[in-house]
Amino acid sequence: MLLRRGSDRWQAGPPWIYRADLNGDPGLQGGEVVRVVDGRGWFMGKAFYSKVSKISLRWLTNDDVAVDADFFRKRLQSAEALRKLALPGETTYRLVHGEADGLPGLVVDRYGDYLSVQFLIPAMEQRKALIADLLEEQFHPKGIINRSDVSVRHLEGLLPEKGLLRGELPPGPVSFDEGLVRMRADLLEGQKTGAFLDQRENHVMAAHYAFGDALDCFSYVGGFALQLATRAKHVTAVEISDAASAQLKENAQANKLSNLDVVTANAFDFMRDAVDEGKRYDTIVLDPPSFAKNKDAIPAAVRGYNELNLRAFQLLRPGGILVTASCTYHVDEQAFEDMLASAASDARRRVQIIERRGAGRDHPVLLNLRETRYLKCFVLRML
Amino acid sequence: MLLRRGSDRWQAGPPWIYRADLNGDPGLQGGEVVRVVDGRGWFMGKAFYSKVSKISLRWLTNDDVAVDADFFRKRLQSAEALRKLALPGETTYRLVHGEADGLPGLVVDRYGDYLSVQFLIPAMEQRKALIADLLEEQFHPKGIINRSDVSVRHLEGLLPEKGLLRGELPPGPVSFDEGLVRMRADLLEGQKTGAFLDQRENHVMAAHYAFGDALDCFSYVGGFALQLATRAKHVTAVEISDAASAQLKENAQANKLSNLDVVTANAFDFMRDAVDEGKRYDTIVLDPPSFAKNKDAIPAAVRGYNELNLRAFQLLRPGGILVTASCTYHVDEQAFEDMLASAASDARRRVQIIERRGAGRDHPVLLNLRETRYLKCFVLRML
Repeated sequence: MLLRRGSDRWQAGPPWIYRADLNGDPGLQGGEVVRVVDGRGWFMGKAFYSKVSKISLRWLTNDDVAVDADFFRKRLQSAEALRKLALPGETTYRLVHGEADGLPGLVVDRYGDYLSVQFLIPAMEQRKALIADLLEEQFHPKGIINRSDVSVRHLEGLLPEKGLLRGELPPGPVSFDEGLVRMRADLLEGQKTGAFLDQRENHVMAAHYAFGDALDCFSYVGGFALQLATRAKHVTAVEISDAASAQLKENAQANKLSNLDVVTANAFDFMRDAVDEGKRYDTIVLDPPSFAKNKDAIPAAVRGYNELNLRAFQLLRPGGILVTASCTYHVDEQAFEDMLASAASDARRRVQIIERRGAGRDHPVLLNLRETRYLKCFVLRML
Repeated sequence: MLLRRGSDRWQAGPPWIYRADLNGDPGLQGGEVVRVVDGRGWFMGKAFYSKVSKISLRWLTNDDVAVDADFFRKRLQSAEALRKLALPGETTYRLVHGEADGLPGLVVDRYGDYLSVQFLIPAMEQRKALIADLLEEQFHPKGIINRSDVSVRHLEGLLPEKGLLRGELPPGPVSFDEGLVRMRADLLEGQKTGAFLDQRENHVMAAHYAFGDALDCFSYVGGFALQLATRAKHVTAVEISDAASAQLKENAQANKLSNLDVVTANAFDFMRDAVDEGKRYDTIVLDPPSFAKNKDAIPAAVRGYNELNLRAFQLLRPGGILVTASCTYHVDEQAFEDMLASAASDARRRVQIIERRGAGRDHPVLLNLRETRYLKCFVLRML
């Protein structure tokens, strides 16, 4: 595979090569491992080739080695080594985070004895059996569930699909612990691969700071709300979906947390009314869904975040804590922090930044592919 | 105190007003609390006035309240509340972090029964007795040591000074725990107020990741090296100063850590030689002193960081961990991350970012005064 230009990008920048940087059409089907050479014919590494995607090449290695079962086995072992080091004793985590673990197009989440897997590019789709074999060899799971039911596959010319890949389905939702809280995930029908593992460490962190009267907005099934309830006097959890509200109530009961009320409402409306009614809280969590799917939607997204965070600043007592997150890829950390500063100014409040966090340590980011950093989570405190 | 312009900055931006934004010379001595009004005569808040500094006004409050003993008492109580919330059970921490705790010009570090204090602006220098009274009332320390021996006081027309302010001096260095490691600080003669409390949480974090053969560069008295030694097979600690090397050896003995060797050498030279000799490590920590005291020195500083981190990437085995810090204020987080990406490219290595950290949670940053964020600490892993 010859590169026209972009050879500097290949080794100095993101581990991706775009179609425009290829020297002509290589006449391949897609999914192949290719040797990459620069304009002078120098070997530059090996990569997965995609025929349909705008990203034609995805980096695999700088070395001229065979990309075979042993290659993938070692990458999986390396991925596991990181989780054992960073999250000792945990049994629920993202085991493989695609590119960032040197396994482009592959996502594997572990929920105890079960693995939930996403194949996102043709090269990985074609190696489904090999990957499943290696996962069985290494982890001996009771079951491997394929959750490749994601629209991003369309960009690669693949249709969404899901189902049991190996072993057996769990008899029902799987249970897993987040700190003191027991959560449940439906591996076949739940969000993402079953739960929002990227916020797992942030959920537990929120319990650390919670006190007094707490408000959790966009609660979903209670990832943050239940944590707050382990420490705060009382928690109001605001969730717009009836189904999620019902699940949240069940989760609260299962955890014997009776100091939590679920309000099925739009969080924007709830917070506006709460400000009007002069309500005050000691701890607030904002974890809204993504507000912008593309660049055009960024201004509206920032306005949305600004409104939510302004309200939160107005609702917090002095000394109160705001845990505020954004999973909008198109609003980066700098823009998010600027928005927070602006909202604090509008509220005429001086605000301390106590922590700036991202996704958990099982969601690494490549030093030269920072584009994949999407989750922001700040811990703020009112002066 | 009338503002010429900059009224937007006062409430929307940093809580500082520069001399150029004042409407004429107010004819004050410096150190006073002043009411601030904008060009239309509207009340904007209260601030400390400095006559000598380029920063004329430092924000105290948006409200038209008395800035008296009770005002400062409440700010000290708020500062303590954050530390109790963020660092429960700890007895060594930064108790007051200046502006970011609403107490401009005041730094208070707690080392168990002793407090180490810096008064950095005339307004605080003049309120030394009041602050000491309030600290005694609130914390009942055995002694309060004044460590205002810092050159930044010159900018405010103050001479450096140090000595015992209240109570008694500790009989010798004070002991304090960082995770499993016991450290010592000389409150009268040590660095800063006695130790580098800003790196305290990062020291303990490093132990979490350490394994195999470890290398710690710029070790000073062992803040990182001793942590590594609690987990790694062997630690080589490189420190250029004879006095610090001796203290580091004593600290290792006191902690019964015999798997640590101290090399008294220049870390740049040591790493270059180690690369030439083909040495390899599993864990490396880089915590150099500041490389740039002003903007002109930024390019040289970045070159220095680049050399160190490139060497570290060359010395690390696959799967190895690099904890790399920078306390250079003039090299911000973005520039530091760009440098790391460039060094990884030069080393032809793919590198995972596991954590991006800053100073500990007892060193808050104001949302509108991000200029005070100086410490970067990344946890990286070789693919």
